[in-house]
Amino acid sequence: MTVIARLNTLADDFQARLRKLLAFDAAEDESIERASAEILRDVRTRGDAALLDYTRRFDKVEADSVAALEIPREQWQQALEALPAAQREALQAAAARVRSYHERQLGHTWTYTDDDGTLLGQKVTPLDRVGLYVPGGKAAYPSSVLMNAIPAKVAGVAEVVMVTPTPGGARNPMVLAAAAIAGVDRAWAVGGAQAIGALAYGTASITPVDKIVGPGNAYVASAKRRVFGTVGIDMIAGPSEILIICDGSTPADWIAMDLFSQAEHDELAQAILLCPDAAYLDQVQAAIERLLPTMPRAAIIGASLGGRGALIQVRSLEEACAIANQIAPEHLEISTEQPEKWAEQIRHAGAIFMGRYSSEALGDYCAGPNHVLPTSRTARFSSPLGVYDFQKRSSLIQVSPAGAGKLGRLAATLALGEGLPAHAASAQYRTDSAT
Amino acid sequence: MTVIARLNTLADDFQARLRKLLAFDAAEDESIERASAEILRDVRTRGDAALLDYTRRFDKVEADSVAALEIPREQWQQALEALPAAQREALQAAAARVRSYHERQLGHTWTYTDDDGTLLGQKVTPLDRVGLYVPGGKAAYPSSVLMNAIPAKVAGVAEVVMVTPTPGGARNPMVLAAAAIAGVDRAWAVGGAQAIGALAYGTASITPVDKIVGPGNAYVASAKRRVFGTVGIDMIAGPSEILIICDGSTPADWIAMDLFSQAEHDELAQAILLCPDAAYLDQVQAAIERLLPTMPRAAIIGASLGGRGALIQVRSLEEACAIANQIAPEHLEISTEQPEKWAEQIRHAGAIFMGRYSSEALGDYCAGPNHVLPTSRTARFSSPLGVYDFQKRSSLIQVSPAGAGKLGRLAATLALGEGLPAHAASAQYRTDSAT
Repeated sequence: MTVIARLNTLADDFQARLRKLLAFDAAEDESIERASAEILRDVRTRGDAALLDYTRRFDKVEADSVAALEIPREQWQQALEALPAAQREALQAAAARVRSYHERQLGHTWTYTDDDGTLLGQKVTPLDRVGLYVPGGKAAYPSSVLMNAIPAKVAGVAEVVMVTPTPGGARNPMVLAAAAIAGVDRAWAVGGAQAIGALAYGTASITPVDKIVGPGNAYVASAKRRVFGTVGIDMIAGPSEILIICDGSTPADWIAMDLFSQAEHDELAQAILLCPDAAYLDQVQAAIERLLPTMPRAAIIGASLGGRGALIQVRSLEEACAIANQIAPEHLEISTEQPEKWAEQIRHAGAIFMGRYSSEALGDYCAGPNHVLPTSRTARFSSPLGVYDFQKRSSLIQVSPAGAGKLGRLAATLALGEGLPAHAASAQYRTDSAT
Repeated sequence: MTVIARLNTLADDFQARLRKLLAFDAAEDESIERASAEILRDVRTRGDAALLDYTRRFDKVEADSVAALEIPREQWQQALEALPAAQREALQAAAARVRSYHERQLGHTWTYTDDDGTLLGQKVTPLDRVGLYVPGGKAAYPSSVLMNAIPAKVAGVAEVVMVTPTPGGARNPMVLAAAAIAGVDRAWAVGGAQAIGALAYGTASITPVDKIVGPGNAYVASAKRRVFGTVGIDMIAGPSEILIICDGSTPADWIAMDLFSQAEHDELAQAILLCPDAAYLDQVQAAIERLLPTMPRAAIIGASLGGRGALIQVRSLEEACAIANQIAPEHLEISTEQPEKWAEQIRHAGAIFMGRYSSEALGDYCAGPNHVLPTSRTARFSSPLGVYDFQKRSSLIQVSPAGAGKLGRLAATLALGEGLPAHAASAQYRTDSAT
């Protein structure tokens, strides 16, 4: 069994093999779809009572009221204070860097006045309320709390509400500490499709939100898709991906470990290396074979690299950039001399890590930019999670009397051309009055 | 039968009646869902052949090849030159204003360097290819071509491809002329779910796009929802809405006609007026009764106002603003003195028209801002179509050796806390090397 596939762009079947490697169909599971739809319907109808029932059934948590499931602020603060100093300080330092980066994304209202005295512009406002889903159990990631909550608070969202399942009543102290640092406003120990329903439709105890963000399992993802329209949602993420372009001069162990760091997420994660130097690809393959048995998560890494990974020999770094644009990866490392030169050729990537020192793991935690990034080639048309996802725009139009004359004639001509006479009349009333 | 409902915020059942008035459930039609899924599957499998078959069946257009369905540029140019001068000039003037407004939305790449010499930033790039759906037949709106294509071209999209059905072979000259003015790159006479499939998956003749925008019938909307993820899509619009806040001093006929201009779109469109002055509401009601029989689209307007319209007496303009935030309307007219004062209180609206001269119809055609706006309360979390919908962002991270030391220690601490040792090792390799 090969530890990782080897491809070469010179091969006749290269494009076919690449397409096969990238193919990933997020098949919908009919039973999950039905279950999440049923839970949503029930929460919408029965509110708090349904939320309590499902929490009892799925999380084995008994509560008399949803109020009893609220996690009080003192508990977050205690969790923060009880953390080992190194972890607490690392979370705080990461939060400060993430906040500083995201503050630069803040959009602002603008207006201008044209020659006729007509004012035009765009008003930028934060969302009122945002719901943040945080998975419970083994995949409880405090970094995810920071990455989702901080942009919302930077945007000016008045209330960020966290929901997180606590199977058997176990509350994750790192997650609570991260919520305290990130500025989350309230938190409930509820999860699953039932928590998504409560956030979207509201219950007697939980006020509905305007947007729901954060990762979750297949039931949560299905429920989010279903409530979209009633509330906004973030992207539904596919498996995580890294694409590395290397000139062959970065220590092979570093690149092997960068591939591992993506592969250790789960068996479906994808890690691909592009390099023009066949000997270097051999070195990386040797490093993979040597280091893999030493890794605590070797089984997951092995399955990911064996099933979806590849070392690809390219003709040149130019060709590597062209393939990167075709793949539109979530994470792109450009591990070369003059990485900025090659970055200029990149049109589609969630995040671009430039230079040998920029390991993708830094971006996951503390470099500053968001770690919620477009997967599965969606970087062709979408962006990292950002402050802009928690602000929205309203067009501003204040037409002057002189402007009403000129614009009214234009609008009336076009409206009549489209067969909409009331539009024309509405414009013409002002035209007649203005001239 | 009442021509339009009258409500009063003082009534005990006001909130219940308002909720009922606003309720709109876009029920999915199972047969449409099945048909669009089947058409998409067929186009994905059989490509051009399926596209030709469906075009023959639904549009009664015979063609030997998809190439024969391309509408050549000369035909657009001829359509433009053949338009009456007033229409041509109105389209050109509207396009210039729309372009000028949208140029102010252009996002730009930014970077900064922190104390350790680490560069962070955000690269902004246009989408490569965008597909624009334009309905055929009676609802063929050249203004829609301008509003969808111009922001894409301002964003720098290299190729904007238009598809439009031509039932019986009839090509709409206003739509073709608008395509020429807006800078559309290519156009095909295909429509329906089959055109959405061709744009999303590509065929031998049509290169796939990265995002599909533009309005369409229920089959088109269903197909767009299904291909989302493979490509980006714009919002799926609900019925159009206007909410007017008036202080009672705008001529009653003007306000009546503004309500009509929304109501004439279709029977489900919603037009609501809020005013503290009962006598003024009587005047507007009288104007509606007097003017309605004179309108060419009186049947549609009557059904819309009778079924979903309302004149609502409020306690004050403050209360009107609070209700506007609750409704989060697509279009909001503030027809008062000092409209900017009330606009400050508005948090949720697609477009805000300020002052008595700012009729909503001007925004539909030529004021400058986009007429594609969030409907059905989605202005709580979404924005008008804009240049930002045709650009995307990539995070930029170039860590200096000094930065790798500091950030690596942070990342390693947090990664180990999350049980991800390969992440920690990947960061630590650089830390060890840097220090």
